[in-house]
Amino acid sequence: MKNETDARLRARAARVIPGGMYGHQSVTKLPAGFPQFFAKAEGTYLWDSDGNKYLDFMCGYGPNLFGYGRPEIDAAFTQQAKRIDTATGPSEVMVELAEKFTRQIMHADWAMFCKNGTDATSMALMIARAYRGRKKILLAKGAYHGSAPWCTPMPAGTVPDDRNHFIYYSYNDVNSLELAIDEAGDDLAGVFASPFKHDVIVDQEMPSPDYARRARDLCDKNDALLIIDDVRAGFRLTRDSSWSSLSIAPDLSCWGKSIANGHPISALLGSEKAKEAAGQIYATGSFWFSAAPMAASIATLKLIEETDYLERTIELAEEMRSGLTEISQRHNVPLNQTGPAQMPLITIPDAEGKADLEKGYAFSSEMIRRGVYFHPWHNMFMNAAMTKDDISQTLDAADASLAAVKDTIVAKP
Amino acid sequence: MKNETDARLRARAARVIPGGMYGHQSVTKLPAGFPQFFAKAEGTYLWDSDGNKYLDFMCGYGPNLFGYGRPEIDAAFTQQAKRIDTATGPSEVMVELAEKFTRQIMHADWAMFCKNGTDATSMALMIARAYRGRKKILLAKGAYHGSAPWCTPMPAGTVPDDRNHFIYYSYNDVNSLELAIDEAGDDLAGVFASPFKHDVIVDQEMPSPDYARRARDLCDKNDALLIIDDVRAGFRLTRDSSWSSLSIAPDLSCWGKSIANGHPISALLGSEKAKEAAGQIYATGSFWFSAAPMAASIATLKLIEETDYLERTIELAEEMRSGLTEISQRHNVPLNQTGPAQMPLITIPDAEGKADLEKGYAFSSEMIRRGVYFHPWHNMFMNAAMTKDDISQTLDAADASLAAVKDTIVAKP
Repeated sequence: MKNETDARLRARAARVIPGGMYGHQSVTKLPAGFPQFFAKAEGTYLWDSDGNKYLDFMCGYGPNLFGYGRPEIDAAFTQQAKRIDTATGPSEVMVELAEKFTRQIMHADWAMFCKNGTDATSMALMIARAYRGRKKILLAKGAYHGSAPWCTPMPAGTVPDDRNHFIYYSYNDVNSLELAIDEAGDDLAGVFASPFKHDVIVDQEMPSPDYARRARDLCDKNDALLIIDDVRAGFRLTRDSSWSSLSIAPDLSCWGKSIANGHPISALLGSEKAKEAAGQIYATGSFWFSAAPMAASIATLKLIEETDYLERTIELAEEMRSGLTEISQRHNVPLNQTGPAQMPLITIPDAEGKADLEKGYAFSSEMIRRGVYFHPWHNMFMNAAMTKDDISQTLDAADASLAAVKDTIVAKP
Repeated sequence: MKNETDARLRARAARVIPGGMYGHQSVTKLPAGFPQFFAKAEGTYLWDSDGNKYLDFMCGYGPNLFGYGRPEIDAAFTQQAKRIDTATGPSEVMVELAEKFTRQIMHADWAMFCKNGTDATSMALMIARAYRGRKKILLAKGAYHGSAPWCTPMPAGTVPDDRNHFIYYSYNDVNSLELAIDEAGDDLAGVFASPFKHDVIVDQEMPSPDYARRARDLCDKNDALLIIDDVRAGFRLTRDSSWSSLSIAPDLSCWGKSIANGHPISALLGSEKAKEAAGQIYATGSFWFSAAPMAASIATLKLIEETDYLERTIELAEEMRSGLTEISQRHNVPLNQTGPAQMPLITIPDAEGKADLEKGYAFSSEMIRRGVYFHPWHNMFMNAAMTKDDISQTLDAADASLAAVKDTIVAKP
């Protein structure tokens, strides 16, 4: 596999970018065969800077919902950009997009737009505190809500004071949630929850109805806000906010990544009772009012509403999941496939059932050599441009990959 | 002046957007005649949603440096977007852009890219703290560095703990700076400075060489980082970082707004000594690695390097400033024109010399009725698409506007 260009670019990057790359798209913590730089994207495929082609199961870490370069969405972006994009004020599309979100997301009575997922979660934090003038915020241990000082997963550059009023509970653990609520006492501002447990490395978990219902009830009882961070999973589980399948409406929901199929925009949606507090905080950004990504988001929401993208994606995802199960059993190499099939985390467990990263690296290295971009420790994403042929190709690659790594893996039944 | 569409859009927005609009582009604190929504942007002109045309002196609050829709820049964006934009990894343009920044900005040995100006300032904050593991950060009172909890100008939704380790000094006041440094003691991590004092409402001030030199010396003496927040003023004073005209190099500089002429990208640049700390923090965002805005930024940096955009803009700006002085004297209505001519704050002073907002509102209302978008309390921005005719039109409008408001203004010589 050619990688000369990638190697050359990495050497150049090391000189002018700290660590050679930073953030979630750095491949420092991926096996050696993973390319750092890409040159082309189309549908569900990526080409790296050396011309190697990949069936991409990361979808840009979420933004790609309908396939890279989906024509209707990009046309909406381009047509809007020709008229007006970033200017001294917003455009009519901002109102249209807010109206569309409030029609399509049941709990939402209003919308605010921003750029990063972290913008949406930080605004949710501020609105929850402004709501009743309280300070305590509950977060699930290990959950990712962004990279600002209050939530970044790595402590470098933060101070303990950044988290003075955060209380951590265990996802899906009603008792732990209740203890955290008690600890907050009459200073409880809000409770953050991921739509499902999608922490890195560890098995994904769907929310237990008990836990989700208790979170809603306790927020109501304490007049605090329930915040669902749908930045990563939004529109991948359902067309509404992700706990709608449990008949639970949050007060605030955070959105990003997929809402304009890769064009830069994120959103905070809220219910009427949080609107006044939302109007009190000051949050803004140079490009938050840009019109072209909003037009792209309207086109994306239209496809979400009008097509069977979700059912088709889930069908393919389940086909892949059962195919991988069959292959795993045939080779007697265990695979842990957790989370929703269309947002799978796929790891190879050790004797205790925990992800064995070394084995996972070996497997994903073989997959990438075969042109399938499988991530060894982050949940993956499927998109609506994927086909049955793509799944067949993936299963063929998985079959060959597991065969290739079998000797180096002590398979445990 | 027609405003039916704007009024209709505002009514719709009030239902689905908190406060009807939020952030720096809300016109809540502007006189009644200012439109909230725009439909078209071209060169240095804006059209509101009712079709009224404006010569725009806000330039999107900064992003518009070369005129809206500058062809070379938008072509670079579009061509890159056709190949790859937001994907599972960055593209070669990211390395090219980092190299170009480090060549053109003298102090910079490396670059990191993000989306909001606040991202760049928050990363600077974290890097300064990571650099020697210290906590105290100095900020000038009243300076704007973004809208995150640690820096937002409005307290709603923040907690006092967000600012436990910030010490505030007075811009341009060496004594106040020294006292703040003393207070930080051996826990000094970094000192933020705006390139010039561009706070809202109050007179702008250029940095005194004494103050700027002392900030650099004290950072060196204490092994702390000097951070210039060039988000707003970058490339509008000089082609290098803004204190280069004083022969002062910061350790970190924050950029945004204008660096891709309106396409969404911001940047943090740093010197070699801060590179290791920069590699330690975790900061990232869904769209930070998108290639198209980086291609647009390369095209923008090329125009900055190769054209006389800056000299032409300053020449027109000074023509406008002296024209306004003449008109002001002729009508016997004082105008305070402060800051660099190309980033002017223009207010009407009261008896004590402070901005009289009521009078400023009256003046800017008359200007906007005549098709010139003048802001009453925020610094404005000129761009390289402006012409001598635009300045003549502006001066004619200012002449008529001052005549119109003269009766309502008690002019004080």
